[in-house]
Amino acid sequence: MSVLKTINAVKQPRVKLEFLGVKWYSKFVQGEPAGPSVKEVYGPINKRMKKELSEIQTTLSVDRFIDLDRSIGNYFVDPDGNTFLDTYMQIATVPLGYNHPAMLNVFKDQSKLKYIANRTALAMYPPSNWAQHLKRILMSIAPPDMGYICTQMCGACSNEQSFKSVFIWYNRKRNGGRDFTKQEIETSMHNKPPGCPNLAILSFWGAFHGRTTSSLSVTRSKPIHRLGFPLFEHWPAASFPLYKYPLEENVRENKQIDAKCLAEVEDLIQKNEKKGWPVAGIIIEPIQSEGGDNHASPEFMKELQKICKKNTIAFIVDEVQTGCGASGKMWCHEWFELPTPPEVMTYSKKMLAGGYYHTQEMLPDKGFRIFNTWMGDPARLFVLEAVIHVIKEQKLLEHVRKVGDYTLKGLTDIVKEFPNVLHSPRGRGSLIAASCKDDPTRTKILTNMKKKGIIGGSCGPTSIRLRPSLIFEEKHANIFLDIFRQSVKEM
Amino acid sequence: MSVLKTINAVKQPRVKLEFLGVKWYSKFVQGEPAGPSVKEVYGPINKRMKKELSEIQTTLSVDRFIDLDRSIGNYFVDPDGNTFLDTYMQIATVPLGYNHPAMLNVFKDQSKLKYIANRTALAMYPPSNWAQHLKRILMSIAPPDMGYICTQMCGACSNEQSFKSVFIWYNRKRNGGRDFTKQEIETSMHNKPPGCPNLAILSFWGAFHGRTTSSLSVTRSKPIHRLGFPLFEHWPAASFPLYKYPLEENVRENKQIDAKCLAEVEDLIQKNEKKGWPVAGIIIEPIQSEGGDNHASPEFMKELQKICKKNTIAFIVDEVQTGCGASGKMWCHEWFELPTPPEVMTYSKKMLAGGYYHTQEMLPDKGFRIFNTWMGDPARLFVLEAVIHVIKEQKLLEHVRKVGDYTLKGLTDIVKEFPNVLHSPRGRGSLIAASCKDDPTRTKILTNMKKKGIIGGSCGPTSIRLRPSLIFEEKHANIFLDIFRQSVKEM
Repeated sequence: MSVLKTINAVKQPRVKLEFLGVKWYSKFVQGEPAGPSVKEVYGPINKRMKKELSEIQTTLSVDRFIDLDRSIGNYFVDPDGNTFLDTYMQIATVPLGYNHPAMLNVFKDQSKLKYIANRTALAMYPPSNWAQHLKRILMSIAPPDMGYICTQMCGACSNEQSFKSVFIWYNRKRNGGRDFTKQEIETSMHNKPPGCPNLAILSFWGAFHGRTTSSLSVTRSKPIHRLGFPLFEHWPAASFPLYKYPLEENVRENKQIDAKCLAEVEDLIQKNEKKGWPVAGIIIEPIQSEGGDNHASPEFMKELQKICKKNTIAFIVDEVQTGCGASGKMWCHEWFELPTPPEVMTYSKKMLAGGYYHTQEMLPDKGFRIFNTWMGDPARLFVLEAVIHVIKEQKLLEHVRKVGDYTLKGLTDIVKEFPNVLHSPRGRGSLIAASCKDDPTRTKILTNMKKKGIIGGSCGPTSIRLRPSLIFEEKHANIFLDIFRQSVKEM
Repeated sequence: MSVLKTINAVKQPRVKLEFLGVKWYSKFVQGEPAGPSVKEVYGPINKRMKKELSEIQTTLSVDRFIDLDRSIGNYFVDPDGNTFLDTYMQIATVPLGYNHPAMLNVFKDQSKLKYIANRTALAMYPPSNWAQHLKRILMSIAPPDMGYICTQMCGACSNEQSFKSVFIWYNRKRNGGRDFTKQEIETSMHNKPPGCPNLAILSFWGAFHGRTTSSLSVTRSKPIHRLGFPLFEHWPAASFPLYKYPLEENVRENKQIDAKCLAEVEDLIQKNEKKGWPVAGIIIEPIQSEGGDNHASPEFMKELQKICKKNTIAFIVDEVQTGCGASGKMWCHEWFELPTPPEVMTYSKKMLAGGYYHTQEMLPDKGFRIFNTWMGDPARLFVLEAVIHVIKEQKLLEHVRKVGDYTLKGLTDIVKEFPNVLHSPRGRGSLIAASCKDDPTRTKILTNMKKKGIIGGSCGPTSIRLRPSLIFEEKHANIFLDIFRQSVKEM
């Protein structure tokens, strides 16, 4: 029986339902099973589907297929009927779990279907009342003092286009807003300076910002993402502060790490200026995610922003993975209490489409500069409206902070129990991780977990990360912690 | 009254309906007005909406808003009630006109809603039976002998990712498929060769391939797209054959143009090899669109492909604007009757999402190389299914060829009538254009046309282009030709 027929509207009273022969209910999405159940991790149907898919595209990254009719809430059901508690949620992209009724219902409102049947070129012919839609939806969750929005499709293109906004701003700051010279216009067609100037974006070792050319040039997590591809050779990378845990026992040392990394940033800015590739923007994740769930302190972020201001460099915060409530605030950088907003903050993933918020001075001065055909995805904006509604209605930010603290406490206890295997438990809201003693150990733990019914994520050289949906509850945390503990114990 | 309530299913008998006080019917979409009607080109509601939007984003490229409740078929209705015959169709992206019932109906099938509520990370966790969906939909229209598909989001990212496929293939060809060296792995993290090798994609003057860094590096249409942004300085551009019209009177001269351009390509390949930036791929549009509706001959394309084969260079055909039936064949490059398929063919726009078809040897050899979080958009795949169904059911390719020939003939007559103003009428299917004597003349003609109710497009330095939907009929062509003629005459 299809889940689509059994799930009920958000506000209906809780009812128990039968699903895969198990009775369950949930505070947030009705119809979850009581827990995971795995028969055969890689079953015959999954194998067949993978073989079929490999006839027309690469399947080298495919782990398993998902049965969208049967997956529900925090539970991922594969076509062989294996049920997993999903703590990775499609690479951190699923805001409200699977088959959330609020999201399923959006296009039952037939007036919304026209946004699917008629996708317009937003920057030339926006739909009627487009400003009102943007204000009601995207601007209702704008980061503090960021009053402008540029809608895009995905995280990588949001970063790419935001860099262009930064370059426009930087050139204007440097040349006083004069018009382009004849030489600039001519050389630009040959991809050469001064028309296409040598300008750089500085990023951090371990960063992940996407896989198009500029977003990949600032990505510094793994060789496999970049081997064999031409990238910007002169774009610099600085060390990200990698703290010693527990933080409270390493205060002085971690402060020194901050100072060292900040000095490196200043040094690279000077070096790149001398090299003829001045730094126009610095991009950073509030928590380095793919790079290993590396947390920098609010003090580091504030000092970094000061360095940007001092050097006329745009401060770009990449919230593609950390945004939309995952940290327990709508935007993770709100935890830093920066005195002024960053110039640019990019988003995607749980936001269902990409884009960036920015300050007024980052507006382009001419048309067709920050432009492409679609400029985002209006249909998905209306799905986001449902997500935002549920986040507010169900007080999910508070919920994420509470469940996050609970989960991190449990994880910390397990780390203490196995000090030779695990270390450095850390987290903000649902963005939780711990490190393993080495990569093979991590792989074994994740494999054990999967056999017992948990889909988990890895990050950095040795870490395991959680990226659950915003409706992950303490009862799910208990299942995760129990299976995680067993998986470590069985090493 | 909303159009959504009055339009009927595709197969219902034609009925006349009233809309904006005019009676109409259409072979393809019911509910079209009898013709355009314009009260005030930039009316007060449009102005107000633009002012509202400018409070939160740039509106420097915004022409007008579109009323999606009232736009229908080939007619664009703005919020002031102006009705335009749309021959530009959202920068060539609308396949079946506005509010086509087949597209509106897709998500009335509730089983499809789950693909909107649950967007998975396609390259890790595809939905059940994903291969079957891809085969039934995308592979049913695959270009001849191109058996592999990589789904993406938009045209620019399709080109970006296809270049990476090309680089992987090229490196494998050059190094015999050996594994990465320690030096390559180390230097790759610094964006430096040999890990990130100096490799180039060759493109053509006038080309448009997108606005992310690599796609913009091969775009060579206008300075405003690129001024102020760092791009790949050593990626070469060759001359695109710009023929003299009428073709039948300039056969010898145009053959010489072909030969000259091909020699230039060979020369650039040699020069770039010497410079240490060997050409790994050549990208070309079957018809240069943004660059001026420049058509190259089938002979040129065949010779270009030969040069690629001779030099172990991938031949990349960019069908973002020309594909999905616009040329009267599903893919415009089918007109060239190439002896073997190109290595890569990219698409987007009328296809509703991006991607590229490719040959088997372009498959990556390792996982997570051609990868990103979403890898396309399953929800839009099902909308494309409806589009493909209508194209086949209604024989729209034949229709496009017939109406295209009719329109081009009419346009040619007008060009002959005004030889001092217009020249070089040209086209394939619905991809039709003519050149004006200069840019100010073009602007005046397009302004006149808009006042009389036609939305048209410009391209290249002096051309006017048509990019109508696939359901543009002779009766629409008559309206276009009549208004175009008047607009030229009133110069």
